[in-house]
Amino acid sequence: MKQLSEIGEDALIEQLVKDLDQGDDVLVGPGDDCAVVDLGAGDVYQLLKTDAIVEGVHYLADTPAVEVGWKAVGRVLSDFAAMGGYPGNLLITIALAPDQEVCYVQELYRGLKKCADLHGAVICGGETSSVPHGSAAVISVAGTGWVKKQQLVRRSGGQVGDCVLVTGMLGGSIQGKHLSFTPRLEEAKWLTEYFAIRSMMDLSDGLARDLPRLAKASGCDFVIDEASLPCNHGCNAVQAMGDGEDYELLLTVSPLVVSELLESWSERFPSLPLTVVGELIEGQVSSAQGGWEHFTEIS
Amino acid sequence: MKQLSEIGEDALIEQLVKDLDQGDDVLVGPGDDCAVVDLGAGDVYQLLKTDAIVEGVHYLADTPAVEVGWKAVGRVLSDFAAMGGYPGNLLITIALAPDQEVCYVQELYRGLKKCADLHGAVICGGETSSVPHGSAAVISVAGTGWVKKQQLVRRSGGQVGDCVLVTGMLGGSIQGKHLSFTPRLEEAKWLTEYFAIRSMMDLSDGLARDLPRLAKASGCDFVIDEASLPCNHGCNAVQAMGDGEDYELLLTVSPLVVSELLESWSERFPSLPLTVVGELIEGQVSSAQGGWEHFTEIS
Repeated sequence: MKQLSEIGEDALIEQLVKDLDQGDDVLVGPGDDCAVVDLGAGDVYQLLKTDAIVEGVHYLADTPAVEVGWKAVGRVLSDFAAMGGYPGNLLITIALAPDQEVCYVQELYRGLKKCADLHGAVICGGETSSVPHGSAAVISVAGTGWVKKQQLVRRSGGQVGDCVLVTGMLGGSIQGKHLSFTPRLEEAKWLTEYFAIRSMMDLSDGLARDLPRLAKASGCDFVIDEASLPCNHGCNAVQAMGDGEDYELLLTVSPLVVSELLESWSERFPSLPLTVVGELIEGQVSSAQGGWEHFTEIS
Repeated sequence: MKQLSEIGEDALIEQLVKDLDQGDDVLVGPGDDCAVVDLGAGDVYQLLKTDAIVEGVHYLADTPAVEVGWKAVGRVLSDFAAMGGYPGNLLITIALAPDQEVCYVQELYRGLKKCADLHGAVICGGETSSVPHGSAAVISVAGTGWVKKQQLVRRSGGQVGDCVLVTGMLGGSIQGKHLSFTPRLEEAKWLTEYFAIRSMMDLSDGLARDLPRLAKASGCDFVIDEASLPCNHGCNAVQAMGDGEDYELLLTVSPLVVSELLESWSERFPSLPLTVVGELIEGQVSSAQGGWEHFTEIS
């Protein structure tokens, strides 16, 4: 019988969600950065997101708890940004060993709250549980967010010929950025307000895994111009594409607007690069490769 | 430095949430079965809930996966019922070891979906992660629900003199009920539609731990009439109060309506007992004892 490590995360999720019925109010179900729900009120949709970080996978036992908390919330906020949205209320689930120190949990919460406060999110509830002695801790953050109807961007809106862009610098996140990144909420708000962003997602598993997902959702293939990649200091193109946990935005726009976008961007966000790294082309994505694969790489 | 096992779950949560700011739209924050959000639309509030079950704590490695899935969703639905509400959309986070079999996860999802489908909930997204080899699996379910404004019931509405009632039979859940219980959504809907339920919660940690929580939230003390407890077959009063995982409703009503309630109930739900088990009295709850304590009992 097959194990999870043999099939990988994308194939697993595809199998799990294929029999799910979509609710009447669900505009976007599994397969995008957030679920999108039409509550039938006002000019916004509600976004729903859940995410978990695991000790020994996403952080280490000796990672400062305040940074662990920051990361747990930041990842969810990054997903709201990826749809052109902003956060609302968050629920925190922590599952920790009984011999964990109380002050660790207090620090963890300080980090959760710090990231939430800074980005306009509110922690409105949660749950605590124990894990057996020796088991990895798990911190799960679920939340509601909002997106203005006309600013909603999905992974699937890309078109053949679109320019592929990324915010920020890629690669080497394990050196520290993965614990202290800024969710690109402000940038996503600006992008979706002033430009026709055709498709977008956040870079959590690395360009080499995430761009194929976006291209596949958009019914296109893609090319990456490796020489153009904005590599973090000390990283080569392979690392920039494969390291993962960049928490930058990956987006596509028509080539007709890209010059204007780049010019306006550099005025609005002078210290954060926005770089054209490739193009959506005709064809089909064969299979994702590289990047961070949850089940196959740690086995 | 103190460990979690030394302070217990309630004291931990109290410490963690004391510095949280409540959002403008949050009507009920941490401390009740669900958070309650006023979206400013229609005659309903939105409920938000997250909950996790952990291998080795809430189920065993050899528990049939379909039952694990049922339980994970059922616990969240039970919390919606506890506020007088009903479920909307659910998000599922599964964190499993890479050597877990794919068919296990498929069975798990079958159980999640079975419980959701039967009770009108929709699974609209989720997340998968790995845990390190040898670590316990964690399944976290977060969801939105709804409650009609006039049917919202909190833990804090109890008054001195209220009769304390429970649905169903208590104790011995570990024999099997903890994996196959029915969330009392239908009963909660009926109760809150036709009677003035003053306070309510679901019994997840046992009457001996949950009633003190309800009484404390209501600013009362309580007495339990042990002789009246509806004990499951083979259980004594101590087990009925302390075993936990009953997933029944605990509620209080004015003594003026209790006769009419019991009579109407037995016509509407002839096969499910509703039993007066105690009274809210003047005073303050000293400290919760007995029942299931997440951090202190497994340490």
